[in-house]
Amino acid sequence: MTVLILTGEEDVTADMVVVHLNASGVPVIRLDPADLTASAALSGEFVHGAFRGHLSSGGRLVSMSGLRSVWVRRPGTPAARAPQPSAWLTEESAQSLYGLLRGCGARWMNDPDAAGRARHKPWQLRHAQHSGLPVPATLITTFPRAARAFAERFPDLVVKPVSGAHPQEPPRAVPTSRVAPGTDFDAVAYGPTLLQRRIAKRADVRLTVVGDTLLAARKATPADADPDHVDVRFAPSGTPWEPVEVPPRLAEAVRSYVTGAELAYGAFDFAEDADGTWWFLECNQSGQFGFVEVETGQPISLTIAQWLGRPGPREPDHADGRRVPVP
Amino acid sequence: MTVLILTGEEDVTADMVVVHLNASGVPVIRLDPADLTASAALSGEFVHGAFRGHLSSGGRLVSMSGLRSVWVRRPGTPAARAPQPSAWLTEESAQSLYGLLRGCGARWMNDPDAAGRARHKPWQLRHAQHSGLPVPATLITTFPRAARAFAERFPDLVVKPVSGAHPQEPPRAVPTSRVAPGTDFDAVAYGPTLLQRRIAKRADVRLTVVGDTLLAARKATPADADPDHVDVRFAPSGTPWEPVEVPPRLAEAVRSYVTGAELAYGAFDFAEDADGTWWFLECNQSGQFGFVEVETGQPISLTIAQWLGRPGPREPDHADGRRVPVP
Repeated sequence: MTVLILTGEEDVTADMVVVHLNASGVPVIRLDPADLTASAALSGEFVHGAFRGHLSSGGRLVSMSGLRSVWVRRPGTPAARAPQPSAWLTEESAQSLYGLLRGCGARWMNDPDAAGRARHKPWQLRHAQHSGLPVPATLITTFPRAARAFAERFPDLVVKPVSGAHPQEPPRAVPTSRVAPGTDFDAVAYGPTLLQRRIAKRADVRLTVVGDTLLAARKATPADADPDHVDVRFAPSGTPWEPVEVPPRLAEAVRSYVTGAELAYGAFDFAEDADGTWWFLECNQSGQFGFVEVETGQPISLTIAQWLGRPGPREPDHADGRRVPVP
Repeated sequence: MTVLILTGEEDVTADMVVVHLNASGVPVIRLDPADLTASAALSGEFVHGAFRGHLSSGGRLVSMSGLRSVWVRRPGTPAARAPQPSAWLTEESAQSLYGLLRGCGARWMNDPDAAGRARHKPWQLRHAQHSGLPVPATLITTFPRAARAFAERFPDLVVKPVSGAHPQEPPRAVPTSRVAPGTDFDAVAYGPTLLQRRIAKRADVRLTVVGDTLLAARKATPADADPDHVDVRFAPSGTPWEPVEVPPRLAEAVRSYVTGAELAYGAFDFAEDADGTWWFLECNQSGQFGFVEVETGQPISLTIAQWLGRPGPREPDHADGRRVPVP
């Protein structure tokens, strides 16, 4: 039973996981959808009520019924490196590859449809509320008067993009920024704007969930930190990421979140306030984890390898095309 | 409780449904995502564990908690008609609109994530097999030798696109065509190819599913029809669409399909062979129904209006971000 990893050739984070899979003798096949139809190939046959599928990549051929899990890491655009790339070929290749894999019965990290839904930040905020996670007061709006009223109730605000990243090649993250007092909100009418109560934080928390394993890391905010440096990704880094225990009630809420979201992997970002409350900022279903593992020594890549490589039964309901909550 | 219809201004099929909703006094709001952020606006607030959302379109303002259902008809590209359109604005607007609506608790026709999965033809074929529908022998492949072997086993084949439609503006359908004997399959290596055993058909069947209502129409193939005219959409039309009873076993399989696919609406295409067997060709989750209603007089738009307008409880699990099979 093989693990399929959908990612590009240069992906050191995937390499970290592959090392563990190799060490435990689990067969791995790596396929970049961009290599369809050059060095990667696919085939699926539906005859007499049965299905037989095959994938080939880097000279190796595997049966789809022999896939125990699929890790959607950093797949390229399907057929992007084909001899004659086109939007049509990309669409045909995407539908073929993901359509065949959706029906093959392997466990997904993450299921593509669940992942698509989980990327929506408004849905994340609502789902976090329902899961019992503390969510900072947030407004997403194109109404200037709604923005003004919100800023009166919550004068200390940050602004951030709704979708998270600029749709560019390579994608560029937009930092979260403080909203200056007396800001004119007229321009809100020209594009949805996400305003959120700023958490006066004493630490950033990254909680990585793999199956039912929770691994949290904490990065203390230096006492002399500039309060305008809201976004940990762009702030000067004086303190390290360190492992931290997950409070039991929060762990329960996080498990409720990933079960409801049907995710096998999620990278949660929290802001810890002066009372020690962890405020939900987002859950990135494809979030990076290499930097946390390197700084904390937490066995994230090993845990992912164990989840992917676990023999266990394939999902019967998945084979049936039905979704089931990820165990 | 209002029905939200996501579609463009000119959509006579939507108009047919709106007539019925108006007649029964159900409030309707029509919104084209392309009108964000010009004549359409949105707002959603997450405060103290609760959510309040609003939409405005054509000068009307509705609360999202007052939406009983959302009909995803023919929505435009978000923010396409904004004063300064951009890929970034489209992404922000799409995430905002569909993210807020995903968490608002209304019933969907169709749920966007279920719809995304249901568009994959390979997944459709596998799901149809599992649901007990007869599926013609089909191969999707980039291996020329697999295509050759398949053509030896099934000499009478048709070829059609995997993704269904050319990714163009306006989208252009590619007709299903017969494969000539002795075809050279070398070019299969350059793009996924869908080959399917040709059903020598005596009729085309269009089965429209709305909730738990099944409405089937049949178009007899004229005795003197050219067997090269495989695709009913492009064949000369000598015979009309006429209502037809759905065989009970097939009805059961179709219900299993839509329940498993979590669809509230689906347009199934079948080919009826000389034995009367209905062979599954595809299920289009956004398929047109106007032409069938006009020719057969079947109350499809009325049934859709009834589904959308039904007071019934909102989906508790949907509000929770969880999917539930469509009743």
